[in-house]
Amino acid sequence: MKTHTDYLTFNTKKRQEIIDITDAVEQCRATAGIDEGMVLVSAMHISASVFVNDHESGLWQDILHWLEHSSAPWDPARYHHNETGEDNAAAPLRSMTIGHEVIVPVTKGRLDFGPWQRVFYGEWDGQRPKRVIVKALGV
Amino acid sequence: MKTHTDYLTFNTKKRQEIIDITDAVEQCRATAGIDEGMVLVSAMHISASVFVNDHESGLWQDILHWLEHSSAPWDPARYHHNETGEDNAAAPLRSMTIGHEVIVPVTKGRLDFGPWQRVFYGEWDGQRPKRVIVKALGV
Amino acid sequence: MKTHTDYLTFNTKKRQEIIDITDAVEQCRATAGIDEGMVLVSAMHISASVFVNDHESGLWQDILHWLEHSSAPWDPARYHHNETGEDNAAAPLRSMTIGHEVIVPVTKGRLDFGPWQRVFYGEWDGQRPKRVIVKALGV
Repeated sequence: MKTHTDYLTFNTKKRQEIIDITDAVEQCRATAGIDEGMVLVSAMHISASVFVNDHESGLWQDILHWLEHSSAPWDPARYHHNETGEDNAAAPLRSMTIGHEVIVPVTKGRLDFGPWQRVFYGEWDGQRPKRVIVKALGV
Repeated sequence: MKTHTDYLTFNTKKRQEIIDITDAVEQCRATAGIDEGMVLVSAMHISASVFVNDHESGLWQDILHWLEHSSAPWDPARYHHNETGEDNAAAPLRSMTIGHEVIVPVTKGRLDFGPWQRVFYGEWDGQRPKRVIVKALGV
Repeated sequence: MKTHTDYLTFNTKKRQEIIDITDAVEQCRATAGIDEGMVLVSAMHISASVFVNDHESGLWQDILHWLEHSSAPWDPARYHHNETGEDNAAAPLRSMTIGHEVIVPVTKGRLDFGPWQRVFYGEWDGQRPKRVIVKALGV
């Protein structure tokens, strides 16, 4: 079994941002030299997500609006976690709604995606350095 | 390490449907001849889910109702994504709520599930051919 | 490829509880003797979650409140699934919101987590024995 691990670092300008990281996932696969297997892509912070969806800016707006209005509103006063001095308790809840990791299948030397599928980093509490681990495993 | 990959195609009669695909997951494991490892089951579209839960029709009704009323209502006018000409923006949000993939553990030559656990394909925008990748990895 | 599988059993005092299981995940990795690979941690019941987040009791309160008020309220009368004689239909919906499994990356002989990340079992219908599978795979 071959493995290779990369770490990506993001320091977003806005507190919430969605970033397409598909090319970095493919780069990790290529460095590992894997034809059959998978790539694990996982946020290394409790206030971020990794997910697979569409590269379309209207959808990204919809996701941010949906997290605020249907999942976990930012309003710091709502949360016990913020009694620790934080103001970001909504971010872990948003991380749990969407998830913090994906597994990308690898077949015949490529990321085995269907139409429109891309890998995204969802930053829910940025403006500081945050990391994502990308680990390829296979043969 | 042994691997085997199958692709399933679904063309549902209704736009939203939940389909038990456990037997196809076991078939992939058997074809791969894997005793210890895992099976990755992943929707290849941004408007569908794969999840593990209960084979019970009342629950499936509850899931569809919950996605409409507590997660992302279908109403196309709510979403920026639909300005591209689509009307299905709720489907990616539902895909992200439930997730688009699962990893099934394999132990001693069988899917290592607890009581009631089965694998399901959740179609959130069907009535056209959609694919699921099933990839077994192990020894 | 090396593999090792452990099964954890929980019988919670309260019906909903959040339990830190990181040490058991590391124990499985160590028993397997894996330096590079991953650990799959997956609830074996349809009414529980496994997730990665923060070891902070205020956040755990927030999660339980959020599941009741923003995800799936417990109220048994709302759900068709409860016509089977159950009263726990909210638990599968909560399991699907947060997810029932995680993959923990292993690098250089340790769980490759960022700051604050820990693995938790989320019990959404306890007070009876429930199991979690922990399976390490790698080299």
